[in-house]
Amino acid sequence: MDNQTDDLITLRADFQAIDQQMLEMIATRRTLSERIAGWKAKQGFSIRDFPAEQNRLGFLIEKGKELGLDAFSVSKFYQNFIEDSVMTQNATLHTLENNGSIPETPKVAFLGGEGSYSQLAAKKHFSFANKPISEMGKNSFKASLQAVEDEEADYAVLPFINSTTGLIGDACDALLESKVSAIGEIFLPIEHCLLGKNWNYPTGNIKAIYAHPQVFAQCRPFLETLGNATLIPCDSTTDALKRVCEGPANQAAIGSTVAGNIFGLKVLKSNIHGERQNLTRFLVLSKVPHRVPKQVSAKTTLALVPKTTPGALSEILLEFSDREITANLLEARPAGNGLWDRVYLIDIEERL
Amino acid sequence: MDNQTDDLITLRADFQAIDQQMLEMIATRRTLSERIAGWKAKQGFSIRDFPAEQNRLGFLIEKGKELGLDAFSVSKFYQNFIEDSVMTQNATLHTLENNGSIPETPKVAFLGGEGSYSQLAAKKHFSFANKPISEMGKNSFKASLQAVEDEEADYAVLPFINSTTGLIGDACDALLESKVSAIGEIFLPIEHCLLGKNWNYPTGNIKAIYAHPQVFAQCRPFLETLGNATLIPCDSTTDALKRVCEGPANQAAIGSTVAGNIFGLKVLKSNIHGERQNLTRFLVLSKVPHRVPKQVSAKTTLALVPKTTPGALSEILLEFSDREITANLLEARPAGNGLWDRVYLIDIEERL
Repeated sequence: MDNQTDDLITLRADFQAIDQQMLEMIATRRTLSERIAGWKAKQGFSIRDFPAEQNRLGFLIEKGKELGLDAFSVSKFYQNFIEDSVMTQNATLHTLENNGSIPETPKVAFLGGEGSYSQLAAKKHFSFANKPISEMGKNSFKASLQAVEDEEADYAVLPFINSTTGLIGDACDALLESKVSAIGEIFLPIEHCLLGKNWNYPTGNIKAIYAHPQVFAQCRPFLETLGNATLIPCDSTTDALKRVCEGPANQAAIGSTVAGNIFGLKVLKSNIHGERQNLTRFLVLSKVPHRVPKQVSAKTTLALVPKTTPGALSEILLEFSDREITANLLEARPAGNGLWDRVYLIDIEERL
Repeated sequence: MDNQTDDLITLRADFQAIDQQMLEMIATRRTLSERIAGWKAKQGFSIRDFPAEQNRLGFLIEKGKELGLDAFSVSKFYQNFIEDSVMTQNATLHTLENNGSIPETPKVAFLGGEGSYSQLAAKKHFSFANKPISEMGKNSFKASLQAVEDEEADYAVLPFINSTTGLIGDACDALLESKVSAIGEIFLPIEHCLLGKNWNYPTGNIKAIYAHPQVFAQCRPFLETLGNATLIPCDSTTDALKRVCEGPANQAAIGSTVAGNIFGLKVLKSNIHGERQNLTRFLVLSKVPHRVPKQVSAKTTLALVPKTTPGALSEILLEFSDREITANLLEARPAGNGLWDRVYLIDIEERL
């Protein structure tokens, strides 16, 4: 190995050391966010303090200038820090408000296992609350909810709606049949990658692609360009990843870079869901409802079956508008009684 | 001031200290990226090394776990670091390749002044190249380009196309009339905010809104909800911000949070361009073309006026497809001769 390569290795070690230090600071920042949330709970202060945030950004932009960093990059990094802090404060206040009723190591049920999007969402939610979780991977949405009803799990994390493909029908139907309460939500950007065994394997030579049917739906335009590959639906992303690990190199799974990393699979192509932002809203579900702290804005999702009389749905919506309540997300699911009966899902920006 | 408030102040000072340290590390990281680009230039290595990146991410996810950070948050922060590093390496290689021909303090012309989006784009581009710039704010796109042609400025930075509203017609027309070369591009996420003099000023009471006409177009759905406000078109965002600073509290400008910060204006409402990602592609223009380093992928934008014979445009496109050249972005602008004559703009993924 010559000197020049040695130096590349040294430089890379320097990067790694800096990145590790940054992570430590992000973790310290979270501890500070928890402490500040504690103060805010006592004083009744709200979580966001926009004037203070803008002041700090101004200070950092000045400091950045001295370091040769442009205002735009400084703002972008700062925005990430703020977002992290707000999520942590929300979670801390929530934990304080429900003191005692949240276990130290909550048991959380979700679809799939290592590398599934539901696992990522569950980890994200409880990481902000600074709670290690005991993971219970299940092979269906129904089984995840059943675990909560049977008190085998404390919580279930379920995908509810995706920005590209809309309501996740089977998760929603399982939810409507169960008797659990939504106590939190997580927005997870879903960045699908094609994952295979070897770097630089030509995507045109892929013979089989494994994924959850929802994932296929979110990547349809890309998949249509791969005419030769057979799509093989799996129970979960974890299932898809495992099958590719065990198979020949001409097979691929769809998952996140994090998932690829866990299974040692390589990213053959990233962002295969296209240029649009692809976000999934997950719900955190519990057998008993939680109290929402007053500093945290709450929303309620209603499931309504209107009478089958003319104007029944518009009457319901008028009731909200008369009370100046913002109603979002009107989605319909088959109600299960008559052939075309519908249950309507409506989000309102209120705590009930 | 009681003890509890004192503690809030201490906590906030701790945040500020951490954030400042993080900025210092981001600046150090950029210096490392420049050094690694130097090595890659000598060895002919490419900028992205996906296996190495994925290895480092795996290492950081493990470290994050020890610190109580979820894999998702670690990946998100790491993605930002990588993006910053790639931009810095691109710029460093570009500077090395054109050694001597890029001035130490380039004079850069752009529309507007402090707080304009073009200023942000210019700063972003040259910040990655580690070059302080001498800024030359102009009051039109034409004047920015004229400055380059007259050698008053070394470069001009011009918005070219926006993801929401498409081609920026007057910038494009000015470009087609000039004799400059595009030597770089910047993608800037444009996050429009309504900026006013007082925090919590109700947006419904705003009487006048100042912005560049392009900005009004990008925020149309939001502006339609403010029936009472008169829209006042300005030469540039800088112009709009100045007028609001000098006027009464019932007026507002549209700009970025960074711009609000520079002018001491408050964010009355953020993300008024809606939920869609709003990205503008800016071009960096020079009188003489630059050489593109072989590790940096290049593209070429062609402006073609096809003969007015049947099939002329499709013949041109077939030439690209016969040579397996990817042609993107087909946009048309009035050609200025006949009433309906058109000049077609085509991006190809090739260096010419």
